[in-house]
Amino acid sequence: MTTVQLTQGAGGQAMQDFLKQHVLNSLRYSSFPKQDLSLEDLDDASAIQDIAFTTDSYTIKPLSFPGGDIGTLSVAGTVNDLVVVGAEPIALSLGLILEEGLLISTLEAIMSSIGSVSRSCGVPVITGDTKVVERGSVDEMIINTSGLGIRSPLLDQNFMRVRETRPIESRWVKDSNLKEDDLVIVSGNIGDHGVSLLSFREGYGFEANGLASDIAPLNEMVVDCLKAGGIVAMKDPTRGGLADALNEWSHKSGCGILVEEERIPIRDSVTSACEMLGLDPLEIGNEGKIIIGVVAEAADDLLSELRRHPEGKESAIIGRATKASKSVVLQTTIGGQRIIEAPLGDPIPRIC
Amino acid sequence: MTTVQLTQGAGGQAMQDFLKQHVLNSLRYSSFPKQDLSLEDLDDASAIQDIAFTTDSYTIKPLSFPGGDIGTLSVAGTVNDLVVVGAEPIALSLGLILEEGLLISTLEAIMSSIGSVSRSCGVPVITGDTKVVERGSVDEMIINTSGLGIRSPLLDQNFMRVRETRPIESRWVKDSNLKEDDLVIVSGNIGDHGVSLLSFREGYGFEANGLASDIAPLNEMVVDCLKAGGIVAMKDPTRGGLADALNEWSHKSGCGILVEEERIPIRDSVTSACEMLGLDPLEIGNEGKIIIGVVAEAADDLLSELRRHPEGKESAIIGRATKASKSVVLQTTIGGQRIIEAPLGDPIPRIC
Repeated sequence: MTTVQLTQGAGGQAMQDFLKQHVLNSLRYSSFPKQDLSLEDLDDASAIQDIAFTTDSYTIKPLSFPGGDIGTLSVAGTVNDLVVVGAEPIALSLGLILEEGLLISTLEAIMSSIGSVSRSCGVPVITGDTKVVERGSVDEMIINTSGLGIRSPLLDQNFMRVRETRPIESRWVKDSNLKEDDLVIVSGNIGDHGVSLLSFREGYGFEANGLASDIAPLNEMVVDCLKAGGIVAMKDPTRGGLADALNEWSHKSGCGILVEEERIPIRDSVTSACEMLGLDPLEIGNEGKIIIGVVAEAADDLLSELRRHPEGKESAIIGRATKASKSVVLQTTIGGQRIIEAPLGDPIPRIC
Repeated sequence: MTTVQLTQGAGGQAMQDFLKQHVLNSLRYSSFPKQDLSLEDLDDASAIQDIAFTTDSYTIKPLSFPGGDIGTLSVAGTVNDLVVVGAEPIALSLGLILEEGLLISTLEAIMSSIGSVSRSCGVPVITGDTKVVERGSVDEMIINTSGLGIRSPLLDQNFMRVRETRPIESRWVKDSNLKEDDLVIVSGNIGDHGVSLLSFREGYGFEANGLASDIAPLNEMVVDCLKAGGIVAMKDPTRGGLADALNEWSHKSGCGILVEEERIPIRDSVTSACEMLGLDPLEIGNEGKIIIGVVAEAADDLLSELRRHPEGKESAIIGRATKASKSVVLQTTIGGQRIIEAPLGDPIPRIC
């Protein structure tokens, strides 16, 4: 293919391949000292010295939807990308690309969302940039937020708890840290964001029964998780959903992951919407959930800690890393097994 | 006006007013400790503790032009935004927003530009994000680069040289630091970037005589400038050109600035292109120039240092801060004086 395809920006396997083939090689920087969390790791954030750094552009449609808008999404998304590597978010940047003719009232509503989420999670926007382009050169508004974090002082005690059971070298929480027998926790119901946004956009009406996006900055909950300790990997299953996140872990760590379908928390309304729409809930993006890889001995403590938080009260242990397989394998409710592949593209475009 | 206008993203006075009215208020963060370089300062970068942070989105048209492309521009622009506050750039993020159907060869050429400028100036891209949107939802490609820097260890000695002549409180080089009698230096010919890009885009042909963009990362040159010392303010006169940059200084510092037209370095080809096109070269964006405010006693040393560098060999002292006026005043070559206003909008859109 000689042109860029939609699937190549969809967060799935096609995007990983695309980046490796056409982007990352050119950016290679040989004289740069090997970092513990580098660009090539393709984790949710990278790190240089004790500073974590991440960036995300938001191209969603429509700008507002049940449970949030592009503003809440951009703050929460960037904060969560920092916390999942074990960083304490300290500052955000805000890059606005606005279409000429955008309603000022729309802009102000979104800026107000950004301000209130930023204040509520304690992470200020400290720098920004604004561009306005002619009508037709962009769909209403694109936001880029980058985020800056510092290595959490809780990481040392977190890893100490890991070391009670096995060695670990990494100074950060990262995808490749998963090892055989580690347990996998998901912090709550999956699929809410993607299904409610799609339903609202297309007028399907599933959101009429209170289904809404799960957007939430998770920094406070993660602080308590790190205090509980024993965490080796965390990830927010956004584009590509749980299927993509688990496959990234499996691929980077060299472990298979066995997931029990009946343990995956999911709302009935999401299950039925997915059945009607022919979507796999495991491939649908979330914006207020994390998956956590934890040494087995610490999993129960961590689960109790998660369930004390409103964003984590549906947390569940859903699986276990294993050397018995190289893949992500789903033990289905009807008793069979199937391999969960990383989605090739994105079943619901423009949701993040 | 109830909708966003093109002039409001053009880097001039209309943008400053727009940001104050519709964006910054919502983002206010009262519990945040007063920073030396905050969002409200609207300097080229902000700082938290000893970390400088900046962001820029690039929406240029066309993607490539004489002297560079959107890739070289995004790296150099972000590096320069960090160095002008006195930070040592250490890392970049790269947010790609690609239009479905973009040629892979175009993408690869631009990634290659990013990689080579990044390596040549010693600042790696350490994190990124890629989105692909449907045809018509964006013009080919938008790039956002954010940058991370650490406070230069040379700042203390730089400010020590300032303190030989007058007190200064700021820990960073910033717009509001300018004081009466400080001299203003520009590091080379102005207008090259905007005029050559416009000429190339519209087919005017001025670039046929070798006129090209001045895009250059200036971090190495600025290191030597800080060693020379005595610098209080720096800025890269991009959108809105010299006119906007000087007005920002004047407004934030409460000083007038008297500029001598005959001292402003400018190529004959840029002067004649501007005359033919009815453009004011002072309002045209540059991408490889800085203006420097320096205590008078240190200006000659600084000028010698600048001229040792290829990017600074046309450097010149062009003016002086003064309490005699509140404005930026141009002493014209024909003997009169006129006030240089901040441009309302942008005479050449989509050049950065």
